Amino acid sequence: MLFTSDNWGGVHPKVWDAIRSAGEGFAPAYGHDSLTQDVHKRFEELFEHEVALAFVPTGSAANGIALSLLTPSYGGVVCHEHAHVLIDECGAPEFYTGGAKVIPAAGSFGKLTTSGIEAAMAPYDPPMTHRVKPSVLSLTQATEWGTVYTPEEIVQLTEKARSYDMAAHMDGARFAGAVNASGATPAELTWKAGIDIVCMGATKNGCLQAEAVVVFDTSRAEELAYRCKRAGLGTSKQRFFSAQWLAYFEDDLWLKLASTAHERCTELRTVLEGQGGIEILCEPQINELFVTMPDETAEKLRSAGAQFYDWVQPNDQYAGKARRFVTSWETTAEQIELLSCEFD
Amino acid sequence: MLFTSDNWGGVHPKVWDAIRSAGEGFAPAYGHDSLTQDVHKRFEELFEHEVALAFVPTGSAANGIALSLLTPSYGGVVCHEHAHVLIDECGAPEFYTGGAKVIPAAGSFGKLTTSGIEAAMAPYDPPMTHRVKPSVLSLTQATEWGTVYTPEEIVQLTEKARSYDMAAHMDGARFAGAVNASGATPAELTWKAGIDIVCMGATKNGCLQAEAVVVFDTSRAEELAYRCKRAGLGTSKQRFFSAQWLAYFEDDLWLKLASTAHERCTELRTVLEGQGGIEILCEPQINELFVTMPDETAEKLRSAGAQFYDWVQPNDQYAGKARRFVTSWETTAEQIELLSCEFD
Amino acid sequence: MLFTSDNWGGVHPKVWDAIRSAGEGFAPAYGHDSLTQDVHKRFEELFEHEVALAFVPTGSAANGIALSLLTPSYGGVVCHEHAHVLIDECGAPEFYTGGAKVIPAAGSFGKLTTSGIEAAMAPYDPPMTHRVKPSVLSLTQATEWGTVYTPEEIVQLTEKARSYDMAAHMDGARFAGAVNASGATPAELTWKAGIDIVCMGATKNGCLQAEAVVVFDTSRAEELAYRCKRAGLGTSKQRFFSAQWLAYFEDDLWLKLASTAHERCTELRTVLEGQGGIEILCEPQINELFVTMPDETAEKLRSAGAQFYDWVQPNDQYAGKARRFVTSWETTAEQIELLSCEFD
Amino acid sequence: MLFTSDNWGGVHPKVWDAIRSAGEGFAPAYGHDSLTQDVHKRFEELFEHEVALAFVPTGSAANGIALSLLTPSYGGVVCHEHAHVLIDECGAPEFYTGGAKVIPAAGSFGKLTTSGIEAAMAPYDPPMTHRVKPSVLSLTQATEWGTVYTPEEIVQLTEKARSYDMAAHMDGARFAGAVNASGATPAELTWKAGIDIVCMGATKNGCLQAEAVVVFDTSRAEELAYRCKRAGLGTSKQRFFSAQWLAYFEDDLWLKLASTAHERCTELRTVLEGQGGIEILCEPQINELFVTMPDETAEKLRSAGAQFYDWVQPNDQYAGKARRFVTSWETTAEQIELLSCEFD
Repeated sequence: MLFTSDNWGGVHPKVWDAIRSAGEGFAPAYGHDSLTQDVHKRFEELFEHEVALAFVPTGSAANGIALSLLTPSYGGVVCHEHAHVLIDECGAPEFYTGGAKVIPAAGSFGKLTTSGIEAAMAPYDPPMTHRVKPSVLSLTQATEWGTVYTPEEIVQLTEKARSYDMAAHMDGARFAGAVNASGATPAELTWKAGIDIVCMGATKNGCLQAEAVVVFDTSRAEELAYRCKRAGLGTSKQRFFSAQWLAYFEDDLWLKLASTAHERCTELRTVLEGQGGIEILCEPQINELFVTMPDETAEKLRSAGAQFYDWVQPNDQYAGKARRFVTSWETTAEQIELLSCEFD
Repeated sequence: MLFTSDNWGGVHPKVWDAIRSAGEGFAPAYGHDSLTQDVHKRFEELFEHEVALAFVPTGSAANGIALSLLTPSYGGVVCHEHAHVLIDECGAPEFYTGGAKVIPAAGSFGKLTTSGIEAAMAPYDPPMTHRVKPSVLSLTQATEWGTVYTPEEIVQLTEKARSYDMAAHMDGARFAGAVNASGATPAELTWKAGIDIVCMGATKNGCLQAEAVVVFDTSRAEELAYRCKRAGLGTSKQRFFSAQWLAYFEDDLWLKLASTAHERCTELRTVLEGQGGIEILCEPQINELFVTMPDETAEKLRSAGAQFYDWVQPNDQYAGKARRFVTSWETTAEQIELLSCEFD
Repeated sequence: MLFTSDNWGGVHPKVWDAIRSAGEGFAPAYGHDSLTQDVHKRFEELFEHEVALAFVPTGSAANGIALSLLTPSYGGVVCHEHAHVLIDECGAPEFYTGGAKVIPAAGSFGKLTTSGIEAAMAPYDPPMTHRVKPSVLSLTQATEWGTVYTPEEIVQLTEKARSYDMAAHMDGARFAGAVNASGATPAELTWKAGIDIVCMGATKNGCLQAEAVVVFDTSRAEELAYRCKRAGLGTSKQRFFSAQWLAYFEDDLWLKLASTAHERCTELRTVLEGQGGIEILCEPQINELFVTMPDETAEKLRSAGAQFYDWVQPNDQYAGKARRFVTSWETTAEQIELLSCEFD
Repeated sequence: MLFTSDNWGGVHPKVWDAIRSAGEGFAPAYGHDSLTQDVHKRFEELFEHEVALAFVPTGSAANGIALSLLTPSYGGVVCHEHAHVLIDECGAPEFYTGGAKVIPAAGSFGKLTTSGIEAAMAPYDPPMTHRVKPSVLSLTQATEWGTVYTPEEIVQLTEKARSYDMAAHMDGARFAGAVNASGATPAELTWKAGIDIVCMGATKNGCLQAEAVVVFDTSRAEELAYRCKRAGLGTSKQRFFSAQWLAYFEDDLWLKLASTAHERCTELRTVLEGQGGIEILCEPQINELFVTMPDETAEKLRSAGAQFYDWVQPNDQYAGKARRFVTSWETTAEQIELLSCEFD
């Protein structure tokens, strides 16, 4: 009954096979191998756009690098007040950007709105040198609350960003879930909707270590490469990491895994709803379920072996009762059933 | 009718004289002159404590240096959500600290409270590496809303800070006003109340350029000196800047100037209260008055030559109607009277 | 005939097996798994000392993190003028330390000497705030020229460093080769010889991605963890990376691989010596061979399929004729033989 | 007999008068006053070019800001191995640029040469991401050895820089001396010779605190303003600092002062030459004289009250015998004579 996080899981067998088969003989280091070149093409097909690309070890590094391409050090990053880049990356955006300010905007269940952005921007509009210059909007797809933006919503947000002369970044740590939920294509969710850079994660969805910075303006390729290198993110044996993406995209494995994870989450929702004072906070669109739950219920479930996190965020309105449950492609129907027994 | 800011003013004649008389002949550069040594002693007398000391050109530089002594780059600075260090220094704290996060806490009219700090700290307590490590509490004395902490209030705040293993910084850009208003000594408002570093400003109160970083832990003197030097803050002809402090402290000139500025502000309050839809937002304890004022009143006053700023802050609750009026030691009773005529 | 670099190779079968077998079921992310705890103990046994430990993706990241623990941002890192941290990390030390200066010292074939350090330190001794404060000596073991320090030499260098109040860092990207060559224990080459932090690499010697920051002062564990996290270096599925070290150390696999690589290098030396105007620049103690070679010889070998790098360094005294050949545990005797045929 | 540095002096009476007369009444802060606007025009006349302009407190801050406009954080600054930006600014360039590397190039008596630049650039040409990307050439006019570049020499250096895709920065802490010595106009020494930004100092030549960053590409004005603000360099009472420049330029005061300082230096040279084992190292073109002098002579002069610095630089070839003597506009003929008596 493990619902802590989707990064507690393992590696999908097909991804394993791909990594292993990448390993025969010698190959140029630092991404100059032919496999990495193949993967690059695969990304361009997937996104229907030429891209500059970097593979990095973590989502935080990906976001940091991406933001450093989109804001000067005296700039600002506007994002949701619960965004991972604001709260959960130990200041990585500040580190990578050289000290840009991450500015919170309000919005229900992790989703930014144009009015929330306007309110956040009020002190910065018109710009003046006393205050940092907000330079990029960062949105998370799917959000930290497991909600998903439609392409139309993204268009509205990026247009609002443009009106303030801001670029647009997408933290796609759970991008597969968002594609699965929205029914939109990767292109529709990103550059067609005004996104400049998407950080696409695969580690939480069946890979070993696979996070990509996907930059649609290929004139930034050199800067991207230098920034990664100087952060020590350039894995020497790159082919073993590139290989994961090939398996991940093959036969839409990534979407199948995301779909399974979402199904389990829907089942979990059914099990928990109405039980022991539990209230569903928002409908799970991907593999995350947020509920309020009395302490005694939480304690009872934990005693029975269930693992999940209390969910504490800035401006917490749930008085410490919010809990997060995360499923994954490895979560079995049996685990859900086991949990349901606790409520019999 | 100039009420924009107290840094639009000039230099007090006694300060001029001190600067000028410091200029005879040669003297060692970079603060190794005897005058600077004298001033150092004067600071120690004033604060009743040995201090490490740096003179820097601006309050933002002073705060940046001070915070860089109190937080690691992976740390955080907790401050009021309207604090100058958060909003009005173009990211100087991030620049100087190497990217520490500045974390807003709520509180009425610029004043932090222990409960506001607790709410701000909730996501960071207990600490975990996913989130930055809040390492210093920064409070402004007097605050950005012209309010003043009592020594007892400061003690409560710094004790709360210690409970989270945080140091305490005081932004004293208008420290003279706070001393004047509180009736407490500099020592009582700072180290006796748990403050580790105070940035004391004199530029807004009659000096040319005089901002001091006052560090009570003298074992930090070397680091203080290096950090200032590498930021290019070490003025070569230091004696002319040190000299200002001697005149400033002489015969309590600083407190007299702060007192005059406050008197003018009180008169201004009397003039504005109840006029043209104006509402006094908080009692002026120093030289700043905040009111709400309808747009038409503001326009009328401006047409008549009055200058003051609209006051836009994050989480603005005054719907864009807040205005700030600042007086100074140079503000004359005539100017106040002139303004009052507009309401006849 | 691939002699470009030891990171063009693959992953040793035993390391593969260890990674794969780490993958069953769920485990806490970010190094809270039991396997990572086991590896931590293994490191402490190996070094005969308690350690704070971080696993990071690359040697550059390891060095950057290590140096950021040992120098303030206004400090300096003294190292050999050809050191990887100075020349080949795209400024990663500056990035991680927040801008410390990397100061070159001269020395034959990559080895620092006490007199070389003295000359480099002359402008910084005694310290003054006009100049950065050199705070750490960084030495590479084995060096960038494939030479190896004895424990006695390291003691001399770290004692010299202490005399300037500097800590000591070891870049051990090819640490296995140095242990193999010196016959000394890991402890003798590090903390027993005055080293504060060693960055130990295994990627070049048979692992997939395995670089460790080994800190002998365990009171720095918290800072180490924060610094890694905020740089986005904290791999979520850590167990798969930790696992590599278990296999690496098991039955001294690491030393066996280093020994094989060195043997091949010795054979290569024999093949090249005296051929086609080739001059051996220094005796290969690990798996790197440096020679001067006329352009025509280089061209001929490359036409025949041999791959190796021209070696351009600051203050290059070899007029562009230096070449580097690197062997590895995968280099076969056949490859060496193939090369020798070119000289028949 | 004070020959330590030209920043030990005072403020010229005409500069005093200008500062004082700037102080009547109120004026907008942060450079929005009319006087600052006037000075801006004066700079544009002087340089015969539109400019973006910032006034900052020190030469180190000026250089730091300028370099941060010309190199990315992953870039490099090529300069003379004795350059102030490399050696004497406590890492300010690294601080301001976010960690760019400062790369030394050799050259006699402080002057860069095209061949010296080529040698320094060899490891960086062609560029590769393992190494930082040198992005700006920084030359000092007059140099740290008191020598002066001709316009033709500057053209050669900046053309060489362009061939590596590098911009060109001029550290003009003693720019007045260079103009006086070269007989060239400010325009001929800067943008007409390929310089992108010149940092022009006046503090050492009769001002109180007057250092300007002069940017010839005015599209960078916004970035310049933001970078200064976030470093806390934006003096609030700017008019008092701007005023100094008006007096400084009025009736060529700046060139007259530089000329006087140079004359004194020439006299000093005559006095010292051949005395007590003294050797003139290079002809004084501005107000600095470098000699080698036996320790006993140095001691004797110091006992008699003469003050001057020993001159220790990286790669010091003078075995610790180099000494620097600096004159200024305040140095009197009597002081020189007094010194000459020591050799009678």
